[in-house]
Amino acid sequence: MDGPLLADKEKPAFEHVAGQDGSPFVVVCEHASRTIPSSLADMGLAPQALASHIAWDIGAAGLARALAKRLGGDLIIQRYSRLVYDCNRPPESPDAIVTRPEGTPVPANQNLTADRRLERLGQVYHPFHDEITRVLDQRAAHGQASILVTVHTFTPVFAGRRRAVEVGIVHDADSRLADDVLARLTALGGHDVRRNDPYGPADGVTHTLIRHGMARGIGNVMIEVRNDLVEGPDGQEYWADTLAAAVIPAAGRFAPGDAASTGAGR
Amino acid sequence: MDGPLLADKEKPAFEHVAGQDGSPFVVVCEHASRTIPSSLADMGLAPQALASHIAWDIGAAGLARALAKRLGGDLIIQRYSRLVYDCNRPPESPDAIVTRPEGTPVPANQNLTADRRLERLGQVYHPFHDEITRVLDQRAAHGQASILVTVHTFTPVFAGRRRAVEVGIVHDADSRLADDVLARLTALGGHDVRRNDPYGPADGVTHTLIRHGMARGIGNVMIEVRNDLVEGPDGQEYWADTLAAAVIPAAGRFAPGDAASTGAGR
Repeated sequence: MDGPLLADKEKPAFEHVAGQDGSPFVVVCEHASRTIPSSLADMGLAPQALASHIAWDIGAAGLARALAKRLGGDLIIQRYSRLVYDCNRPPESPDAIVTRPEGTPVPANQNLTADRRLERLGQVYHPFHDEITRVLDQRAAHGQASILVTVHTFTPVFAGRRRAVEVGIVHDADSRLADDVLARLTALGGHDVRRNDPYGPADGVTHTLIRHGMARGIGNVMIEVRNDLVEGPDGQEYWADTLAAAVIPAAGRFAPGDAASTGAGR
Repeated sequence: MDGPLLADKEKPAFEHVAGQDGSPFVVVCEHASRTIPSSLADMGLAPQALASHIAWDIGAAGLARALAKRLGGDLIIQRYSRLVYDCNRPPESPDAIVTRPEGTPVPANQNLTADRRLERLGQVYHPFHDEITRVLDQRAAHGQASILVTVHTFTPVFAGRRRAVEVGIVHDADSRLADDVLARLTALGGHDVRRNDPYGPADGVTHTLIRHGMARGIGNVMIEVRNDLVEGPDGQEYWADTLAAAVIPAAGRFAPGDAASTGAGR
């Protein structure tokens, strides 16, 4: 590859679907797509790998769209595969541009120059996160409260072992919203719902929550659903209903100006 | 005011002074300046207010420059008064564009429209933070580790009471670097050094640490020095020496790729 990462005809890294006035929710889906920019061809990977969960969060885009509708929220979706750049990882992370996810070498990601790394940042990571920033800034400037909900899925079998957990409610140091969502989902019953499982902050998966949630002092939670439950529209609708029933009432405690503040000068 | 916030002849909101190759440090000073953009004239404030700590962190720019030299670090300084936009606050914070710091009304900040708020963001907050992002991205793309040190000062008398604390070592949920710096400064002896005092995360002062430090998984600390100790060059040099003696060895535990990661796909 010698040309730019994204061709002129290719879409920007983000899609924004506006929500309804009055909804506090901003739904984000970092791993929505398995699209590879044409300049990277197949990245040196087999079709099976490019269709698997190492390329995207299977079912996450459909779930995020269905959930955003229930919540009335803004929706921001990433358009390219996490193999190009994992938008839930900071530039410092070795997982930002994976070289060997779950043991599968990714030829197009080997030995990248600093310039190529910066191009991935400049054309995928930054446009996507800048759009989240733009949406949240607009809301803040108009005095609208915001609550961040990120939507992910995980594979039912990992490293040869089956996972029993169905839904993971993930948070970093700010667990206010996650605690409430977890309690409400648990109270609904019938599902295996866990805290920071199968992934949590120690796995480096809370980048978006920290950058856009904690840094702004707004309520934030990452929801992980096992992908065999949301592969098709029926599962996505079921889980959008179920999650909305927990998330909407949990948001009640967050109001505009909730960000920690003393008003003190220094 | 009808024109743009910053006139063509005015400088961008950030100044970047490049560090030495091999230094991991990135020093940031959000409240370095009391400069008001000409479009805002005196913001409706008396000269005394515009020279006071409500407009800037007195002595912080000199201290930050002296400390960055000791550390060999990159230095990023904000060029405009915190009264225009407080770059250590997110857009959601009521303290981002203060209306009544310590009881002093700021006429130019009353009843701002959403567009005027967004202009403050677009011309002050974002250019400054984007420069920090750019510097950290460049370092990451070249495989250089980064450690974030932010420099602030606080007023010796607040709300009619004298403060005994001389130095505050401030952190949010990631206290790795702060713990070590605090221990080393305490061991040096002779000064009143405290944790998250006179300000800490509950006061909303950890925005830069969260956004650029925690979100990247890099070591980070905010250092607050009482401003009567660093008003002049002698005090700034003394404190730059003292702080460098604690910060440089404390950085030893941070290496490239330190950001939490399991390498796991999902």
